[in-house]
Amino acid sequence: MTADQPSNALLNIAITTGEPAGVGPELTALALAAAGAHWPDAHFTVLGDGGLLAERAKAVGIDWAAQQGRRIATDHHALAVPAQAGKLDAKNGPYVLSLLDAAIDGALAGTFDAIVTAPLQKSTINDAGVPFTGHTEYLAERTHTPHVVMMLAGTGARPLRVALATTHLPLKDVSAALTVDGLVDTLRIIDHDLRHHFGLPAPRILVTGLNPHAGENGYLGREEIDVISPALKLANGQGIDARGPYPADTLFQPRYLNEADCVLAMFHDQGLPVLKYATFGEGINVTLGLPIVRTSVDHGTALDLAGTGRADAGSLIAAIDTAVSMARNRRAA
Amino acid sequence: MTADQPSNALLNIAITTGEPAGVGPELTALALAAAGAHWPDAHFTVLGDGGLLAERAKAVGIDWAAQQGRRIATDHHALAVPAQAGKLDAKNGPYVLSLLDAAIDGALAGTFDAIVTAPLQKSTINDAGVPFTGHTEYLAERTHTPHVVMMLAGTGARPLRVALATTHLPLKDVSAALTVDGLVDTLRIIDHDLRHHFGLPAPRILVTGLNPHAGENGYLGREEIDVISPALKLANGQGIDARGPYPADTLFQPRYLNEADCVLAMFHDQGLPVLKYATFGEGINVTLGLPIVRTSVDHGTALDLAGTGRADAGSLIAAIDTAVSMARNRRAA
Repeated sequence: MTADQPSNALLNIAITTGEPAGVGPELTALALAAAGAHWPDAHFTVLGDGGLLAERAKAVGIDWAAQQGRRIATDHHALAVPAQAGKLDAKNGPYVLSLLDAAIDGALAGTFDAIVTAPLQKSTINDAGVPFTGHTEYLAERTHTPHVVMMLAGTGARPLRVALATTHLPLKDVSAALTVDGLVDTLRIIDHDLRHHFGLPAPRILVTGLNPHAGENGYLGREEIDVISPALKLANGQGIDARGPYPADTLFQPRYLNEADCVLAMFHDQGLPVLKYATFGEGINVTLGLPIVRTSVDHGTALDLAGTGRADAGSLIAAIDTAVSMARNRRAA
Repeated sequence: MTADQPSNALLNIAITTGEPAGVGPELTALALAAAGAHWPDAHFTVLGDGGLLAERAKAVGIDWAAQQGRRIATDHHALAVPAQAGKLDAKNGPYVLSLLDAAIDGALAGTFDAIVTAPLQKSTINDAGVPFTGHTEYLAERTHTPHVVMMLAGTGARPLRVALATTHLPLKDVSAALTVDGLVDTLRIIDHDLRHHFGLPAPRILVTGLNPHAGENGYLGREEIDVISPALKLANGQGIDARGPYPADTLFQPRYLNEADCVLAMFHDQGLPVLKYATFGEGINVTLGLPIVRTSVDHGTALDLAGTGRADAGSLIAAIDTAVSMARNRRAA
């Protein structure tokens, strides 16, 4: 980068505005209204229908046209049919995917330093005839990444971060889904991304057990002995500072969290209720292990709030903030 | 009760001081030092070795003898061998059980209005040759109660309360342990005890799903459809205000909790990490469904802190406070 390429000095952050009937478009306008103050080193490319964005921005008191050029640009993708706040229409399913595809292609090509995704509605895409299980899975597939890790996080000086060893599968299948190799891979991905995207030179990961009281020495289950502890030993041998397994109900206490950069929970409902309680309204979702940087809000499309101006942009602002910070660290690495 | 029986006007609360090598004895002394101010309508019977209690009270700056008579009495049970802070000795296992037995017998006979249990060490009792899986199970057996419910709670005007549909079993066995009848029984016990022991005339119970996102309409597991929803319907038919199943990661948010008297979680690590995070240091454990009132601290024996005066009596004070309040409500009912 040289002085005669000033535009390259700015980070280019893509924001996919997601489901057009949901709160994504208006939250994007609200979040970026503060862009100048929050993120002076970033340019934002907002992917969505230009008319829709103007309309929803106006509903929350923002003149979208006046925002353009102030380090904000709209990458227009046309809706298939007009979108009404709160009313899903499967005809716009392909539109939602087109935003995501354009963001992924741009990130893989190096045009975008990070992607921030506003919420989409899975059913809209599935009803349009495209099988779709979620943003995270789609990103993994489109970037040919065999193993990604979902991490939710708060913001702040020492934010609570919770990564998951398993994500969206029935509870009764969790035990069988845990393997030594899988856990070692997960720990390696967390360690790598915390170092390179979060600027943590020596990340410490605390790992939960699977069973109550981390199995009480095998009395309440053997996965800690047979799977988790061997995985920790292997990870430690690779220079990863991962400790555990700890009982989940005592791990989420200040005496442990104060010395952790990330908690690895074994499954969805072990880690996320406490994370969402602790980060209320400002939690974000980060996909680790991808060749690109991607963050997301931790909430859904909130169809009942769309167009009302009552939805809170806190999570999207936090997601943008984390994406900018990750992109910065990645450039510096 | 008549005016010439003033002693009966006081609630009689039994406190079992638990493992003699742990923090139970000193925390009891610390908690009761404030008894006059906190609980003017209660008398406390402290079960333990008189010499041990005097010694541990002294270690935290309290003259145990001077406390006696001020609505505090020691029910002396002799240690088998002298107890050293921090050093477990199985020879004292039967002593620990004798405290519990005396408290249970007294409560069943109506001498005690409630029992508060300080922590014990399961291994001490098991190593003494007595099979023992926990306070809760022992209380159920000794009172011939086929079904009890473990509930953890914070304190305050609208405290967070979390009851568990299953407790100490391996995670992979949780799904099979959930039955329609079992859940209806659990809901009935919670509803009954919240009404009669907690003074809530119309308790509302919010119920989690078992699977991530409460199963997403069967896509991530069928227990919500096959077990939880039918149980809720049956419970509703019996006049119980139980709602759900809700995704556990969105249920623990103010918009839901503000209108709940209790959350019923399906398993240990779904409900307790967030409860313990939220009630940090002041959480308590209540056994619902017993013919007697029993509360407990939510922490262990803290052997490393015993005798140092560094252990925090917050949870024991909260457990005593809840026991007194429950006993009051029970008398009034």
